[in-house]
Amino acid sequence: MAWLPLEPSDSPPAAEFSREAILAAGQRFAGRIHRTPVLQSRWLNQQLGCEVWFKCEHFQRGGAFKIRGATNALLQLTPAQAARGVVTHSSGNHAQALALAAQMGGIECTVVMPENSPAVKMQATRDRGARVVLCPPTQADRIATTQAIMQETGATLIHPFDDPRIILGQATAAWELLEEVPDLDAIWAPVGGGGLLAGTCLSAAWFDPARRIPVYGAEPAGADDSYRSLQSGQLVTQQQPQTIADGLLTTLGQWTWPILRQQLQGLVTVSDDEIQAAMQIFWERLKWVVEPSGAVSLAALRQWLADVDPATDSATEPTAGANRPRKIGVIISGGNRDFSPVPVPNPVPGR
Amino acid sequence: MAWLPLEPSDSPPAAEFSREAILAAGQRFAGRIHRTPVLQSRWLNQQLGCEVWFKCEHFQRGGAFKIRGATNALLQLTPAQAARGVVTHSSGNHAQALALAAQMGGIECTVVMPENSPAVKMQATRDRGARVVLCPPTQADRIATTQAIMQETGATLIHPFDDPRIILGQATAAWELLEEVPDLDAIWAPVGGGGLLAGTCLSAAWFDPARRIPVYGAEPAGADDSYRSLQSGQLVTQQQPQTIADGLLTTLGQWTWPILRQQLQGLVTVSDDEIQAAMQIFWERLKWVVEPSGAVSLAALRQWLADVDPATDSATEPTAGANRPRKIGVIISGGNRDFSPVPVPNPVPGR
Repeated sequence: MAWLPLEPSDSPPAAEFSREAILAAGQRFAGRIHRTPVLQSRWLNQQLGCEVWFKCEHFQRGGAFKIRGATNALLQLTPAQAARGVVTHSSGNHAQALALAAQMGGIECTVVMPENSPAVKMQATRDRGARVVLCPPTQADRIATTQAIMQETGATLIHPFDDPRIILGQATAAWELLEEVPDLDAIWAPVGGGGLLAGTCLSAAWFDPARRIPVYGAEPAGADDSYRSLQSGQLVTQQQPQTIADGLLTTLGQWTWPILRQQLQGLVTVSDDEIQAAMQIFWERLKWVVEPSGAVSLAALRQWLADVDPATDSATEPTAGANRPRKIGVIISGGNRDFSPVPVPNPVPGR
Repeated sequence: MAWLPLEPSDSPPAAEFSREAILAAGQRFAGRIHRTPVLQSRWLNQQLGCEVWFKCEHFQRGGAFKIRGATNALLQLTPAQAARGVVTHSSGNHAQALALAAQMGGIECTVVMPENSPAVKMQATRDRGARVVLCPPTQADRIATTQAIMQETGATLIHPFDDPRIILGQATAAWELLEEVPDLDAIWAPVGGGGLLAGTCLSAAWFDPARRIPVYGAEPAGADDSYRSLQSGQLVTQQQPQTIADGLLTTLGQWTWPILRQQLQGLVTVSDDEIQAAMQIFWERLKWVVEPSGAVSLAALRQWLADVDPATDSATEPTAGANRPRKIGVIISGGNRDFSPVPVPNPVPGR
């Protein structure tokens, strides 16, 4: 692991990202998507010596938090915009979430995917009613193809993360977590493009402004652009990422970067082995299917508790009562994995 | 699939298996083990055209329902018996459940395992404080070794299923399910040695005696001794079972057989492919790690709804209100799988 402690600013978030805007997002999509459960494991709490409260977005509709931002964005389209449809470029959870949200709203949806995307991901997106347009597997081709579709159809671009409507939608996950456990001492969330982590920072800042609950980011070491950006103070572009956490390959954007820079308490990067160990805890002990990207926040927390805390950090010390166990929120971002075929043991002969 | 409709008797269960005995089991271990959640999937309900209420024993302590019977049995030992310890022969969930229950109660536990058992299962049993004694991999050797230990140590045998205390403990799973959803039209449970299925029959019979909620058994086609026993009316011994459902290889016993014969509404056998398809639903859609044996009841229900219902069966027709969807309880028996290493995708290069 690598650990980057940060000093968050005292300033409130920018005007677009008000407390009211977070609450409005939650009210906008209430009843359309799940209010996911917040769960604990007694075994894990004993192992880690603190209370870990998981916000279970792997149980969300579409299997990931992405439906929050997608739904929040689609519900704010004008009737004229909705009639022209939406477009995005993604081969991951955002593509399927946008397709699902558009299907629920009766809106046409086009998804631009690299032509080398797994067939199962293309099919899953089509199964949710979206049109899939393939392009050569370069960033430039994806953008060019998307722009061509926008010009041709008048469709509105719904970016996977770098859009205030998306960030505010993702913020509702942490807000719901805090409504259930208001006295959390810290929240951990993974970072790829930064939509979920930025949203988490916003909810933590607004939920209890007097306390400003610390938020920690968790990033794969093989895609550590956020770490390098926050360390240097300059937005660094992702180069040649290599990690099993395939949902966290993207680079921070113009909207997410300033929020993280202002609000984050610290960032931890973890190796693929550490991510795998956290997945194994979810699968074997908690019986939850969590995807690699979804396990990164637990992986980072485990390493941080073992290697950093409490020697160099006091930000998450108990705020009320010296002897109560610390209460730490961990956002599980998603659980989308293809199991075709599902891994089963060999047939067992009689015994 | 193969489908065997049965005609349950009107007689109440035998005296050992009273309503009060089920309630006493639940009170006995209250607070020591989990009251597992009862959960639904909107997607699956739409697929199947009925409401499926899952009793989630894969979230139970030790990862399976087995801790219910084991705890119920151990809590009824006399102080003198407890001081001499307990013994069982098993390489599966019962071994680990008994070890865990004994550890909680401060009781010495010995588990006899075939010497070709997976090392990870031996280690998991030792990790829960039990002594593991290996024996040659035959049924005769297992029994001889177990009896030698009983004579040597005075330990009490806790059978995996063929014991009223075990059956009554397992019955509490269905009882809890019915407390949450009293108007279930039917309950499905898997059958190996029959402890869970017999217990389910008892709870269904006693919970609402006027209605006698139908119970259906689900069995792997590759270990179909229950099917052949119920078809012939004679207890048939398992010969050369071969299935991925490694928790359901055993034969019915002297206590479980009469209960099933008297109480069961029908039995469905399913192929390994059908079990695998049900597992895939749990893993991909519901994000739950369910072991093959745990998926057999959903596999059987799916096949039965597709191939049998409603042409030849009216037992699960709605009992209240003609237009409400049928409500079907399904017991997921466990989720114990070894993931070492956990299956992860190959590291993904940048895109």
